Amino acid sequence: MTGRTARRRITRIRVGDPRVAEQADLLAAEEPLGIRIGGQAVSLTMRTPGDDVDLTAGFLVSEGVVSTAADVAGIRICDGTACGHDHQPGDEIGNIADVTLAPGVCFEPGLRRNFLTSSACGVCGKTSISELRVSGRFDLFEDRVRVTAEVLAGLPDALRSAQRVFDRTGGLHAAGLFTADGDLLAVREDVGRHNAVDKLVGWALQEGRLPLGGCVLLVSGRASFELVQKAVLAGVPVLAAVSAPSSLAAELAQEAGLTLVGFLRGSAMNVYSSPERIRSPSPAGPDASAATYRPS
Amino acid sequence: MTGRTARRRITRIRVGDPRVAEQADLLAAEEPLGIRIGGQAVSLTMRTPGDDVDLTAGFLVSEGVVSTAADVAGIRICDGTACGHDHQPGDEIGNIADVTLAPGVCFEPGLRRNFLTSSACGVCGKTSISELRVSGRFDLFEDRVRVTAEVLAGLPDALRSAQRVFDRTGGLHAAGLFTADGDLLAVREDVGRHNAVDKLVGWALQEGRLPLGGCVLLVSGRASFELVQKAVLAGVPVLAAVSAPSSLAAELAQEAGLTLVGFLRGSAMNVYSSPERIRSPSPAGPDASAATYRPS
Repeated sequence: MTGRTARRRITRIRVGDPRVAEQADLLAAEEPLGIRIGGQAVSLTMRTPGDDVDLTAGFLVSEGVVSTAADVAGIRICDGTACGHDHQPGDEIGNIADVTLAPGVCFEPGLRRNFLTSSACGVCGKTSISELRVSGRFDLFEDRVRVTAEVLAGLPDALRSAQRVFDRTGGLHAAGLFTADGDLLAVREDVGRHNAVDKLVGWALQEGRLPLGGCVLLVSGRASFELVQKAVLAGVPVLAAVSAPSSLAAELAQEAGLTLVGFLRGSAMNVYSSPERIRSPSPAGPDASAATYRPS
Repeated sequence: MTGRTARRRITRIRVGDPRVAEQADLLAAEEPLGIRIGGQAVSLTMRTPGDDVDLTAGFLVSEGVVSTAADVAGIRICDGTACGHDHQPGDEIGNIADVTLAPGVCFEPGLRRNFLTSSACGVCGKTSISELRVSGRFDLFEDRVRVTAEVLAGLPDALRSAQRVFDRTGGLHAAGLFTADGDLLAVREDVGRHNAVDKLVGWALQEGRLPLGGCVLLVSGRASFELVQKAVLAGVPVLAAVSAPSSLAAELAQEAGLTLVGFLRGSAMNVYSSPERIRSPSPAGPDASAATYRPS
């Protein structure tokens, strides 16, 4: 079973109503995906099946292993045949991704003790607190894109209408990639919002779009340290979240030159770092250069 | 800095309003906590500082390392003195927990390659898909507690009013532990909802309350596979979530005999497994035995 949704019988209860409504319901699917590099197991993450090659490619970017499509020779989702895997009872076909890196691209887990990690958290695998911050290869301070507040305010609705599974299950996070004019480039969904971002970044890697200069990344939930880290590693200059950021997310965003927007709801938003990329609404029109916000 | 909130200057923008409102705002704090057992680094998780001993104890339960308070000889949060740690620049005092297990309690990471894991995901650290399911030590099928739909419907408000930080930051998940009559036993908050549950379970371990028979665990967000696993390992018979469960969460709940409630909003709720623990609203009164729901 590797569908994006799963059907189950549920019991619907309403206080004060003695009738028991048993009915079929659609749930967001959640299954493990094992990632192997050169045959070695390096990650096991819970994800919603679908876009697994994207997820795997994005994981490689978020872990700092690759930064261009040419770094990856191939990603193959195991179909149970000729894979060389030692399948265990209960393992599902389609839940293992085999990565082959291009010649010359190094992956030496021995250099970093306990590399094993998960795209669901982006943290474990690091054994010391100082190892947490992965250096970005792209300089966000160089990205001079400007986005209007009007465009930003319109993104949550655009993301929601592009979500295919959410409306059926209510259980998926989404991440969307937009141009500075608000045009949707791609959307990905997952039970884990970090996976949704990895899927987007992996799509961009394969499309030769990294770094994602001039783009806006929108996430449906909160903005954590790890999400900011993923945005920085993908070279996205603006990260917007519908809900709250954490303190460390705001700190890292400021250090990296990322514009971090939170509580993007209705016509309002909070900007936690690099507000100069957001154009002020102004009667002089969106091109008035004096109308950009100054950093605090 | 190890407070639960952090203050930042933010820029508040409203579409159509050219005024720039710069103001102070409170954010939910997020910082790494490294967990060491017998001096060996085994986990690094992003968490909201506070209740770190609870979090560490709950991590040990969720990983299947301990199941009673007597299994733990001590948990000490590093204060930067006489700890024997090799502090790196940038490491924060208060962000390392040292665990000493009781004599006879085994922790042999060598037996399980790459034990390194994170309470934020509960998955990484497992190198094969078959390793995912940790066996519970408590038999939930034996727990014959009954909870009324009225009590369940009242829990989200009770949890919300017990949250101290959420109303100030809008950025924290919460987990609450209740009796079958709806009395709040404990509440914990964190930027990660898995951490909030680990903090609760760790509290219960230290209070000698494991297994949490007859209790209801309420989480503020969605119910994932890992949250169900944590509930099963703590011996909680009823897990309720304000939002959607995943497919694997419902599957594991059914296998383990856990009552899984989702979309607990207003007076309505969906029951995904073991509905017999939920008492039907009935004119005959809550003690009418015929009024419990039958499993589908």
